[in-house]
Amino acid sequence: MDLLFLGTSSGTPTRARNVSAVALLEGLGKGWHLVDCGEGTQHQVLRSPLSLHELQAIYITHVHGDHCYGLPGLLASAGMSGRTRALPIVAPAGIQAWIEATLRMSETHLPYPLEFQATEALGDWRHGDLRIEATALSHRVPSYAYGFSEASPDPRLDTARLDAEGIPRGPLWGQLAQGLDVEHQGQRLRGEDYRLPTRPPRRVVIAGDNDRPALLAAACRDTQVLVHEATYTRAVANAARAEFGHSTADAVAAFAQSVALPNLVLTHFSPRYQADPTRSPSIQDVRQEAAASYHGRLFLAQDFLRLRLDKDGLLERVEAERRQAP
Amino acid sequence: MDLLFLGTSSGTPTRARNVSAVALLEGLGKGWHLVDCGEGTQHQVLRSPLSLHELQAIYITHVHGDHCYGLPGLLASAGMSGRTRALPIVAPAGIQAWIEATLRMSETHLPYPLEFQATEALGDWRHGDLRIEATALSHRVPSYAYGFSEASPDPRLDTARLDAEGIPRGPLWGQLAQGLDVEHQGQRLRGEDYRLPTRPPRRVVIAGDNDRPALLAAACRDTQVLVHEATYTRAVANAARAEFGHSTADAVAAFAQSVALPNLVLTHFSPRYQADPTRSPSIQDVRQEAAASYHGRLFLAQDFLRLRLDKDGLLERVEAERRQAP
Repeated sequence: MDLLFLGTSSGTPTRARNVSAVALLEGLGKGWHLVDCGEGTQHQVLRSPLSLHELQAIYITHVHGDHCYGLPGLLASAGMSGRTRALPIVAPAGIQAWIEATLRMSETHLPYPLEFQATEALGDWRHGDLRIEATALSHRVPSYAYGFSEASPDPRLDTARLDAEGIPRGPLWGQLAQGLDVEHQGQRLRGEDYRLPTRPPRRVVIAGDNDRPALLAAACRDTQVLVHEATYTRAVANAARAEFGHSTADAVAAFAQSVALPNLVLTHFSPRYQADPTRSPSIQDVRQEAAASYHGRLFLAQDFLRLRLDKDGLLERVEAERRQAP
Repeated sequence: MDLLFLGTSSGTPTRARNVSAVALLEGLGKGWHLVDCGEGTQHQVLRSPLSLHELQAIYITHVHGDHCYGLPGLLASAGMSGRTRALPIVAPAGIQAWIEATLRMSETHLPYPLEFQATEALGDWRHGDLRIEATALSHRVPSYAYGFSEASPDPRLDTARLDAEGIPRGPLWGQLAQGLDVEHQGQRLRGEDYRLPTRPPRRVVIAGDNDRPALLAAACRDTQVLVHEATYTRAVANAARAEFGHSTADAVAAFAQSVALPNLVLTHFSPRYQADPTRSPSIQDVRQEAAASYHGRLFLAQDFLRLRLDKDGLLERVEAERRQAP
C-alpha cells in the first residue's frame, strides 16, 4: 500500500507544489484511489506512473476549490483516453450537482458512468479489497476524513468452519479461498465469510481540512498512518488570522502523539512556507514545530513523494518513478 | 504587442503541452488579455512573467472544457493574491451561470467584481487601448474568434480640428492629446475624437475551434496575425473521423494564403502529434502540410512561445522569460 502525493499546497498552486490530491495505491496490481482532486491533478497524474484507466474511485474531502476544481478535467480526460469502466465518486453534497452541471454546460459526454456516493451516507463502504468509512471534521464547510482499511489481509481459508458446515473439499474450497461467492446445495456461500485474516489489516486515514484533530481519535484506532493538513505553524497562525478552519503543525503533532500514532504525514502547507530553509517562514519551521510534540515517524509531504506502508505497519519513503517530459 | 502561448494542446494536456490559453500582452506596461483558460492555465501563468494583478480581461471562445475549466481556479487565485480591480469576462452564453454556480458550490467569495459580457452581444467593445470584436465560427457548439485592434496607434493631436472648433491652445490640448475627456464652455470633449493615428493599427485575430476558416475572411482584413487551430493534418483527419468540428493544417493554410495574411500561427494540436520528428505522426507533418499551401510567415505554437508584433506588422519570436521552479 503506497501513498503518492500529487498536490501538497493549500489554497493556490505554487511553482513547486500543486493543490490537494493524494493517490493511495493498492498493494497488488495497478489500482489506485484518489483523495481530493485540485486543479491540475490530471497533469500530475501524467507526470506519475499512475493511469486513469486504473483509477478505482475518487474521494472528495470537502467542496473548496483547491480540493475539487480538477475533477471535471480529469473525468473528461479519462473519457477521451477510452475509459469505459464505471467510476465511483464519494463526495459531500454539492459535488454531484456541480459535476453534472459542468459536464452539461461544456457538452461533455463521458463514455463511462459516474457512481456518486454521498459522503454523509457512506457508512462502511467496500470497494475492491478496501473498506472505507468517513469521519466528520471541523472546517468552514462540511469536511471529512476517509479511513482506508484492508478488508482481507493475506487471508487463509477457514477450514474449521467449512468442515463444521459439511462443505466438501474440492473446487468449491478453491473458489471460496479466492474470495468468490459460490452456490452449494441451493445456498449462496459468500467467500468473504470463509476467509480469515492472517495479520492485522493495514489502515490509513486521509483527512480533509480540519481545525480539531481530536475528532479523529476514534478513526485513528488501529491505524498506522494519518495524513493531515498542517496549513500553518503556530507562530504564523497567531500572527495572521486571515483564514480559519485549519490546524497548526503543533496541534496535529500533539494529537498524533496523544493517540500513539506510529506514522504522521503532514501536508497542505500555506504557500508562504519556503522550500529554502534560510528564508522565513520555511517548511523546516513546520517540521521543527511538529517534531517538538510528536515522537513517532514524521513525514512532510511534497509533490511526488511516495511512501510505502509494509505489512508490518512500517512507513518508508520509496524512490518516486517520475516520468520526464518527452 | 506580444503573444505568449500558455497552452497549445487539443482536448487533453500532454507532458509538453497544456490545454488552450494564449496571452496577448499590451505594447506598453504589463497589462495582458487572456484568450481561453483551459485547466492549469493559472499554473502556466506562475511559470511565466505574467501577473494575475495585471490581467485586463478574459475572453472565452467556446464552452468546451479544454478552453474554460481553468477559469474558477484562476479567478480564485487572483482573489487570494489580493486582486480588487474588476475583471471583465467576455464569454458565450453558459459560462457566466456556470462560473457563478461553481463559486457558490465551493463557497468562494472573490474580493473583486466579475463583469460578464456576452460574446453574442459584444459589438465593437473597447477595453484600454484595444478595440475587440467577435466573429462567429463553425464548431459543435457556438464558437468565436476575437479580433484585437489598437484603438489609437501612436496618436497625434488633431490640431486642425481644434483650431477649426476654436478650442484655445493650452492645458486642454495637453489633456486631449493624452486621450482624456475634458469640459470646455459647458461641453464635454472626448479625447478620442481629437486624436489621429500616425500609423495603421496592429491587429491580431485569435480564433476558437472552427471547421470553416473562410468565416474569418472579413475579420482578417487589415490583420497582421491570425492564430487558428490546426487540430489535425489532412491525412489523420481522413483516417480517423473520431472528432469533427476542427480544421486541418491544410485548410487553414489555404485560407490564410487566399486572404494574403502576412503571419499565421497554428495551435491546438491533437496530442497524437509527437514532438520527435522521427515518430509518426509528428508535429513536423503539421508544419509541412501548412507550408505547402501558405507562403507567408508560418509559426507553430508551443507552450511558452512568445511572439512580438512590431509596429510595422512584422511578427518575430522573442526569447521567452520563463520562471524556473525554485
